[in-house]
Amino acid sequence: MLEPERIVRLEEDAVVLLDQQRLPEEEVEVRCSSAGEVAQAIRTLAVRGAPAIGIAAAYGYALAARQGDDLDKAFEVLAAARPTAVNLEWALREVRAADDPVARARELHAEEVERCRRMSVHAAALVPAGSAALTHCNTGALATGGVGTALGALREAWARGLLRHVFVDETRPLLQGARLTAWELEVAGVPNTLIADSAAGALLASGKVASVLVGADRIAANGDTANKVGTYPLSVLAGRHEVPFYVVAPSSSVDLRVASGAEIPIEERDPAEVSSRFGAWNPAFDVTPAELITAIVTEHGVHRTPYAESLGAAVPA
Amino acid sequence: MLEPERIVRLEEDAVVLLDQQRLPEEEVEVRCSSAGEVAQAIRTLAVRGAPAIGIAAAYGYALAARQGDDLDKAFEVLAAARPTAVNLEWALREVRAADDPVARARELHAEEVERCRRMSVHAAALVPAGSAALTHCNTGALATGGVGTALGALREAWARGLLRHVFVDETRPLLQGARLTAWELEVAGVPNTLIADSAAGALLASGKVASVLVGADRIAANGDTANKVGTYPLSVLAGRHEVPFYVVAPSSSVDLRVASGAEIPIEERDPAEVSSRFGAWNPAFDVTPAELITAIVTEHGVHRTPYAESLGAAVPA
Repeated sequence: MLEPERIVRLEEDAVVLLDQQRLPEEEVEVRCSSAGEVAQAIRTLAVRGAPAIGIAAAYGYALAARQGDDLDKAFEVLAAARPTAVNLEWALREVRAADDPVARARELHAEEVERCRRMSVHAAALVPAGSAALTHCNTGALATGGVGTALGALREAWARGLLRHVFVDETRPLLQGARLTAWELEVAGVPNTLIADSAAGALLASGKVASVLVGADRIAANGDTANKVGTYPLSVLAGRHEVPFYVVAPSSSVDLRVASGAEIPIEERDPAEVSSRFGAWNPAFDVTPAELITAIVTEHGVHRTPYAESLGAAVPA
Repeated sequence: MLEPERIVRLEEDAVVLLDQQRLPEEEVEVRCSSAGEVAQAIRTLAVRGAPAIGIAAAYGYALAARQGDDLDKAFEVLAAARPTAVNLEWALREVRAADDPVARARELHAEEVERCRRMSVHAAALVPAGSAALTHCNTGALATGGVGTALGALREAWARGLLRHVFVDETRPLLQGARLTAWELEVAGVPNTLIADSAAGALLASGKVASVLVGADRIAANGDTANKVGTYPLSVLAGRHEVPFYVVAPSSSVDLRVASGAEIPIEERDPAEVSSRFGAWNPAFDVTPAELITAIVTEHGVHRTPYAESLGAAVPA
């Protein structure tokens, strides 16, 4: 079990992160001595996952406050580190508005842990008894600082004896599924099988999988969901094979200011991350339209379509 | 331009192949001195692509015949090298039935070159003027010993000024798209962009692509098509976005003895090919149902649904 403070924590003079670029080969920590260094760690994916980068940014801002740095600049550099996950900006606004940024950052982390626990319980109940599930990218402890979103739900469903097996997309180009999710599942003792992302069609066609659970980087007011690239194809395949497709995410990933997925900025990363000698297009995320999402699960419960109503009622604007 | 004899040729005492495992970093030839060594080269993907492994197997059998080896055994070991592409068994039956296996193997190669040329002309006419296309895996000279199937059509469409750009799936786990297709397109001067397989959903949703062209390892009598894993998801996404989805393959890939895709054997390869430390499921192919295929193009022309009739009329049983 990965304790929340192993993923990210605030020490006296640094934000300390478990370096997710080097897992699972090496468990190495990164010390960030300034907001700029935290932003760099977020950009390079030493810490990734929408809730986790929100917490890391909050600690980065708190560190800047403690060190008497320029807080407008700290806010700006941290908010700009990655564009798609709304948690980053949300968490920064929370710590900026607080009298004690350090205390508020620690509180945000504790709240995120509690949100993970609650949504895992809500979402685990959706997993049919004795079934296998498919997931994409990493949405576990590493991505959240808590038990996880979709992966937390899968672990909860396993603990309750509902889930039999987890299939894991390797998640190109940076292999968060192969490196991080398979590792978390091994550590937790949950039976799992890795597949190439492109094998998800054959897997869903085989009837071996009864549900698909994924996380979210930003959920628009209408339920459209931006998540790791490759999520949208899974939703289309799940729909074709009548397999329920669930998004599991904290309310901090819901952005009611954004009407639909078309307004969510999609980060494009270095083509060199794709195995290319010539040139590549490397979007980090894609948008799954609300119509393909069976339910969105937050810490408040299971939200169903129409999401404009069900999310709007649960999430403060 | 890759000449047919550079991909695979019969010399006095060996079948000589361009080693596709080591491309594009190194252009190295492999000499196979027996049918068993040719079978090994097919298994390890030193030569791959349904038409190319048919030709390599035919040369392997011809070599065994010239050397006075046990021809039943040569047939058996070559036919068993890979199970999905029907071209392998088809080509072996052709050379076994011939009075002069060496002459017949060379003739088969020349026929495959001519089939490629013809289907490329038929399929290129389907590409809308000024458009971009998406392709998967490698279906070019390397895969066929001729100009290629889907990739041959794309090159022909480029030569005619119809095609503006090709997007290439990197094609996990062995990256035939990233390594071989991108390289063939660069050599041919065709503008191209690599994407992670999982980004195909975002690409098709963007409207940038007007057609999807893929090859085939085996086409059943009803049009169901087995091809490199990841093809089926593309067909589902293309259908959702109303982008035409074309299968381009020689009649030697059509197997009228097989009624539907459910009867096509799907090879499962070593989990170690997927980037796994724990365990993986690694099907090499998936099946695209005929209903998702806009047209199947062979050297005989453009076949449309119902395929049982259109393929049956064109391909000798």
